[in-house]
Amino acid sequence: MRDGTVRIGILGAGVVGGGLYQILQKNAEHIERVAEVSIEVAAICDVDWERPRDFSVPTALRTTDAYEIINDPDIDIIVETIGGSDVALEYVTAAIRAGKSVVTPNKEMIAHHGNQILPLAAQYGVDIQFEGSVGGVIPVLRSLKESLASAQIDQIIGIVNGTTNYILTEMTEAGAQFTEVLAAARREGYAEADPTADIEGIDAANKLAILAALAFGTRVRVEEIYREGISQITPTDIDYARQMGYVIKLLAIGARNGDQLELRVHPALLPVQHPLAAVRGVFNAIFISGPECGEVMLYGQGAGALPTGTAVAGDVIDCARNIVHDSRGRTPCRCEGEASVRPVGEIETSAYVRMCVADQPGVLGRIATLLGHEGVSIESVIQRPAGNDVADIVWVMHKGPERHLQAALCAIKELDVVEQICSVIRVVDE
Amino acid sequence: MRDGTVRIGILGAGVVGGGLYQILQKNAEHIERVAEVSIEVAAICDVDWERPRDFSVPTALRTTDAYEIINDPDIDIIVETIGGSDVALEYVTAAIRAGKSVVTPNKEMIAHHGNQILPLAAQYGVDIQFEGSVGGVIPVLRSLKESLASAQIDQIIGIVNGTTNYILTEMTEAGAQFTEVLAAARREGYAEADPTADIEGIDAANKLAILAALAFGTRVRVEEIYREGISQITPTDIDYARQMGYVIKLLAIGARNGDQLELRVHPALLPVQHPLAAVRGVFNAIFISGPECGEVMLYGQGAGALPTGTAVAGDVIDCARNIVHDSRGRTPCRCEGEASVRPVGEIETSAYVRMCVADQPGVLGRIATLLGHEGVSIESVIQRPAGNDVADIVWVMHKGPERHLQAALCAIKELDVVEQICSVIRVVDE
Repeated sequence: MRDGTVRIGILGAGVVGGGLYQILQKNAEHIERVAEVSIEVAAICDVDWERPRDFSVPTALRTTDAYEIINDPDIDIIVETIGGSDVALEYVTAAIRAGKSVVTPNKEMIAHHGNQILPLAAQYGVDIQFEGSVGGVIPVLRSLKESLASAQIDQIIGIVNGTTNYILTEMTEAGAQFTEVLAAARREGYAEADPTADIEGIDAANKLAILAALAFGTRVRVEEIYREGISQITPTDIDYARQMGYVIKLLAIGARNGDQLELRVHPALLPVQHPLAAVRGVFNAIFISGPECGEVMLYGQGAGALPTGTAVAGDVIDCARNIVHDSRGRTPCRCEGEASVRPVGEIETSAYVRMCVADQPGVLGRIATLLGHEGVSIESVIQRPAGNDVADIVWVMHKGPERHLQAALCAIKELDVVEQICSVIRVVDE
Repeated sequence: MRDGTVRIGILGAGVVGGGLYQILQKNAEHIERVAEVSIEVAAICDVDWERPRDFSVPTALRTTDAYEIINDPDIDIIVETIGGSDVALEYVTAAIRAGKSVVTPNKEMIAHHGNQILPLAAQYGVDIQFEGSVGGVIPVLRSLKESLASAQIDQIIGIVNGTTNYILTEMTEAGAQFTEVLAAARREGYAEADPTADIEGIDAANKLAILAALAFGTRVRVEEIYREGISQITPTDIDYARQMGYVIKLLAIGARNGDQLELRVHPALLPVQHPLAAVRGVFNAIFISGPECGEVMLYGQGAGALPTGTAVAGDVIDCARNIVHDSRGRTPCRCEGEASVRPVGEIETSAYVRMCVADQPGVLGRIATLLGHEGVSIESVIQRPAGNDVADIVWVMHKGPERHLQAALCAIKELDVVEQICSVIRVVDE
């Protein structure tokens, strides 16, 4: 800090980098008042200054050389908004080694390399903050580290991917097929050209890794998170779910169960009364529960230039305050614990199962008997004729070990009267 | 801080003081790990150690003399959980002058005397934190000061009183009368013996004063908050509202409108799709909106030993970190701005109006004409026979200056065909 001003360098002039820059310009006076220090953008690096942007950056601030920023002794804080794990990791590591505090909304990098970056930051006595990496504007990471710091967290359930929540909301409200809605979402910019990371739950798993590490104080490996996407969800299932009082959401679930963690991303039926059930469209929300805090939910826009820019700017202010007060490293993440991850077959869940069967006497009984043999208990069942001598049977099972259900379904599949097990979707009801 | 331990003294061994003490005992190891310092309860003061409690305090920690704690040089942080504005204010002031950081969930004291206490804390270089004063466990004040610090806030809408939200939820879900539900709520401990402060919106106004001061960076005088309670709400209105797609909630609303603030606590119709509409029972939630952050909602238990204790413990950890890092005063509230409060008549609102009229031709037309004369525009209307030659007419008006509606209603009341204007309830629909 020179002349009473904290200087930041932004790596990446894309959506979030641009959002941050606009906020720091437009609200400069307000920010100086609340942060009690002037925060100035000293330089912005991007590889391509020609592509069209909806904000303009003075030529004097532009560079194409990240190291010009990283090595500038007048710059106090580096904001990395490049994304991905390769070059971003290189720059962030170099920035920490150069003694700069780092702010990044890069969930992929933090989820995969946080266990390397965070101790490095501690070693160099600088801050690393990444509120924007989960849930965009939603102040969830800071709340876990500060306001809820004293509380034991038992479970954290997130709707942390706006694209899939948008798709499921549209499927629910318009009765449309997954592929149709996905195509529309791409046209409207709510889904990327290659939407795999969103619809297969990869993005949500990265965010869950970060949330779970902070909530449970343990190291979390993304590879250990069980993951299913939403491409198999049909309007038929959404409609049956609705009739039974549920909505279908892609959930990222982390839970502590004794010494073990449960970590999973999958679509799930959620009771309509659950606070997460009302989260529509591109909004995100994180539901936190524990013996002291009870149920807490934090809700907001999970993406976008200004919402995510707000989260990043909050981190910048935090880093600036620590520079002013010489208190860097004041609020570290304590995620060094080790916990084993419970295999998904051992997890206790309830499930919704839809199957097509021959519409003839005795079928329901034969299937129910097989479920009983494997110790799977039935909570409710609907049977409906589906035409052509075929019937739909829709079951919701009571909670039990997942492997029991899998064993029962294997046996049921072999019955000659069972045409197809169409859908198996977990139910989250606590 | 002596021997690497931060020592706290708790004034008041009631619900919240007890919740805090239990959390600090039970989660001591966890808290030491995340706070990076041991936090020890050195003493607890209460005037009556004989009354029954569901937690026990070792005799060595008990005192009946607050000044024994306030003047103990080994105590670093004073937690005030006495409540009220008299003795609490005296003790907090003395603690600050004794160089202690102060944590308090006392909304009445902060709302009425924050403008005196906060500058005093700044003058003495200590922290004052009061997260538990609004929304119990909900991390809203810290989020406004930190994660959302860069953002302009346009509006803040809170469901910040659990008692009234419980009563309205029960009235909605069971179709019961206000007085019945209030009596039941008293029996079940959801309402106090004297529920005036809750049902008349006094408690909500205190919380709004704190929220608005932080959100808008201005001084807010509780006396300037317009206030209506919920005792006039009937199941009939709740049912008409439901038919029109609304729920009725007691809302605390703060908005910035140019140079002026709007500050009001009153029951309101809220569209069922609004995130606040799903907040049931004793839960609280705060909905924040602005041009950068978009829509953010924070939800959780607004009261109770452990939820509010969690918020207070979060503040204690924050103060402890500032003591360890010698960074007290790092995150002050900047609420020194002055803004005038817009008179309620000048506020633009829409309203729901229910009236009983003679069930005869031409009545609707005469009333609609009077509304038109005063520039009140009608959004929707329902007329239903109510028996005995009387009809209910229920109107929802378009948004407009409130004084226009009041003028129209004065004229309508004089019509011979109008038996009674039964209810006028504002509609909040953005």
